[in-house]
Amino acid sequence: MLEPDFVRIDGVSGAVAPQTGHYVKKLSDLRGLYQDAGAYDALLARGDGVAYEVQEYRKPGSDLFFGTTTMYPGQVAGEYFMTRGHYHVRPDLGEVYYTQRGQGVLLLENRAGETREVEMTPGSIAFIPPGWAHRSVNTGQEPLVFVWVLDVEAGNDYAEIPTRGMRRIVVADGGPQVRANPKHSG
Amino acid sequence: MLEPDFVRIDGVSGAVAPQTGHYVKKLSDLRGLYQDAGAYDALLARGDGVAYEVQEYRKPGSDLFFGTTTMYPGQVAGEYFMTRGHYHVRPDLGEVYYTQRGQGVLLLENRAGETREVEMTPGSIAFIPPGWAHRSVNTGQEPLVFVWVLDVEAGNDYAEIPTRGMRRIVVADGGPQVRANPKHSG
Repeated sequence: MLEPDFVRIDGVSGAVAPQTGHYVKKLSDLRGLYQDAGAYDALLARGDGVAYEVQEYRKPGSDLFFGTTTMYPGQVAGEYFMTRGHYHVRPDLGEVYYTQRGQGVLLLENRAGETREVEMTPGSIAFIPPGWAHRSVNTGQEPLVFVWVLDVEAGNDYAEIPTRGMRRIVVADGGPQVRANPKHSG
Repeated sequence: MLEPDFVRIDGVSGAVAPQTGHYVKKLSDLRGLYQDAGAYDALLARGDGVAYEVQEYRKPGSDLFFGTTTMYPGQVAGEYFMTRGHYHVRPDLGEVYYTQRGQGVLLLENRAGETREVEMTPGSIAFIPPGWAHRSVNTGQEPLVFVWVLDVEAGNDYAEIPTRGMRRIVVADGGPQVRANPKHSG
């Protein structure tokens, strides 16, 4: 049997302790995500900073695993920093995002072409039903930190959304505005 | 397809909005849980207060559901207020408890007779692996509030633990002490 455990979550930094995995996405890892390739190159030329990081607690044999995502603030030509975004490989498995710090927008879309947005603010859970791709966008001035919980079998498919984009983007225009993505192919 | 949603969690009161279910356990609902039946009757005679309440967000067709438990502080002859406790019906499905407020102890045991305790304190997640019965105990002076997430198929079995008790109890003796349950049938 697996051992029960006490796992410290730092809602300010996003630290998870103990943890079983940690990855960092730098600006250079996110080429192609943003509308303005020239602005992206210019920003990268000024320094390759951390855009977001993911820390997780996952034990083989468990059904659920959890962790945090910490997204740093920033923009590329007015487009807010965002995660790559993904569908789950398993279309019958969803996720919950519980925001701890900061302000953001969760972009969702499904294969029928429908789109939704859910606000991310401390003390709220975004309920992500099965079948919805999701991408987080940090629209604030400070880190956006959220706890996520999902089934170990869900699987994140990073082939589709990071390549094709989502149908909506979030840009700064007197505050965060959700707009149609002019570059979306579908 | 299910709709994504924005669900407000109040980490101070435990309120969940919107919610799909809410139940309240009063002291009178918890007969037989405590060591000292006479002290329980005497406390109940002074008033039948709310011991704990559970608020949930659960959508048919989702794999995960979540909610909060709010446990009020109190003791019955030195034994801290606790939940009924349960195994999941599905032995392959676990749970996570993310404490928001207060102080507590999570008692766990499995069918091999092993017992564990996990501290509950704000900013920590108790990882409950599949196969472990669990009961929360409020060892503090204020409400103990935690967010839980589990699979909709897990199922809570309230036939066994509330009737037979757990192998460990938590009593106030210069602070919370975990002791063997003298009434446990084995």
